[in-house]
Amino acid sequence: MSEKHLQTGDVLPPYSGKLRLFAMRFCPYAERTVLVLNAKGLQYDLVFINLDQKPEWIYNFSPKGTVPALEYEQGKAIFDSNIINFYLDEKYPDGPLQASDPLRRAEDKMLVEEFASAQSAFYTAAFNPPALNPTMVETYHKGLERLQKELESRGTKFLNGDSAGLVDYTLWPFLERFEALPLIGKPEFAIDKTKYAALVTYIEAMKNVPAVKSYYLAAETHAKFMESRAKGDPNYNMLDTSAVCCMRPRKKKE
Amino acid sequence: MSEKHLQTGDVLPPYSGKLRLFAMRFCPYAERTVLVLNAKGLQYDLVFINLDQKPEWIYNFSPKGTVPALEYEQGKAIFDSNIINFYLDEKYPDGPLQASDPLRRAEDKMLVEEFASAQSAFYTAAFNPPALNPTMVETYHKGLERLQKELESRGTKFLNGDSAGLVDYTLWPFLERFEALPLIGKPEFAIDKTKYAALVTYIEAMKNVPAVKSYYLAAETHAKFMESRAKGDPNYNMLDTSAVCCMRPRKKKE
Repeated sequence: MSEKHLQTGDVLPPYSGKLRLFAMRFCPYAERTVLVLNAKGLQYDLVFINLDQKPEWIYNFSPKGTVPALEYEQGKAIFDSNIINFYLDEKYPDGPLQASDPLRRAEDKMLVEEFASAQSAFYTAAFNPPALNPTMVETYHKGLERLQKELESRGTKFLNGDSAGLVDYTLWPFLERFEALPLIGKPEFAIDKTKYAALVTYIEAMKNVPAVKSYYLAAETHAKFMESRAKGDPNYNMLDTSAVCCMRPRKKKE
Repeated sequence: MSEKHLQTGDVLPPYSGKLRLFAMRFCPYAERTVLVLNAKGLQYDLVFINLDQKPEWIYNFSPKGTVPALEYEQGKAIFDSNIINFYLDEKYPDGPLQASDPLRRAEDKMLVEEFASAQSAFYTAAFNPPALNPTMVETYHKGLERLQKELESRGTKFLNGDSAGLVDYTLWPFLERFEALPLIGKPEFAIDKTKYAALVTYIEAMKNVPAVKSYYLAAETHAKFMESRAKGDPNYNMLDTSAVCCMRPRKKKE
């Protein structure tokens, strides 16, 4: 898997017959689907794209050119992380990632919905810091408190139960990135170990879930990407080692 | 069922033991759930609330005080039209309102997602006309074209098949209101019978679905409400006949 992001003018790699996910390495929405593909043990190809200079063909898979988009059959795709993830869980029912109880399924969706305000606050803090205000910081902490309360009331290791499920994989990519905020000069977003004891235990448990572990990036890495994007020049390819290799000066012909 | 909207200070009516839906008579999102409750043949109470002067107790059922919210058990509720509707279809599986094929379910959700831009254009045209611009009118028609194309490619009477389903009940409340736009001085939003022949046939078929018919309001009625709301004084109780009765001057005691 290359960590290079394809951009305008780059050709679409040949279709291998596997499921193919169009993503961006640092996008939390795309990560949601990566985690579900991993959790389901599905074989898939991953294609990263530059969201500022999008390759033309992304619009064949996603009407607004957003990621994630899942090509489930050559030339046919599903967009939107939630739509894709429910599709995957229904299409590949082995190892279901949702509760069977309709009420619990609704509760999971409400939790995701309620957490959205905390995510918005995170986006402002990370990518548009001048627009940040105290109300957003408060909203962020209300989101964390809500999540912690839910973990405590459910009393299970994960929100889904003894093992992580759709609700966990949907919220996780944001929690992973929240830890980067104190590293970019936003200490008010720190997740205090005393105040958030149950939440911190959950965060550590999530880091050890195999589906998460294999795609996890450290807070320092997310912080670097955030800083580049906040400056208006997102360093999509910062993890791409192939570029370094290709940029070695060629030996002169003798 | 009273058409009166309860407001700040009004007491919460006693719980009858039935499902109870908190709604606003002209809200398209609340209508989505009314239609699903009707389609499922469920018994329910309907409580309308004034969205500008909300009764305090609505926050016990809906964290942001939005409608619809469904009280499924005394004091316990689900918010968000989509979350409620999926819950109802899963909880009451008789007469399923969704396809069993995971891909078709994903396609339905994508269609709803794609139609959201047309809905936004409608909201601006109806309630904030000074902000309307030609791009929004274009977006609106792209949404209608997309929907018509989908109807033609599916080749069924309804999007869901021979009978209306979740996808139809989710989109319908907006189509019902779109017809009011030419009546409030927005002829560019008219749904032309020649250009949109297949869509118009579908719209007429939807008006005859029993679940829709019993809650349907004519374009003229929607237009009146829109005008009152655009002026900043939404006439929530315009269909309430009880008010007229109660406001009759009392006979003087003799």
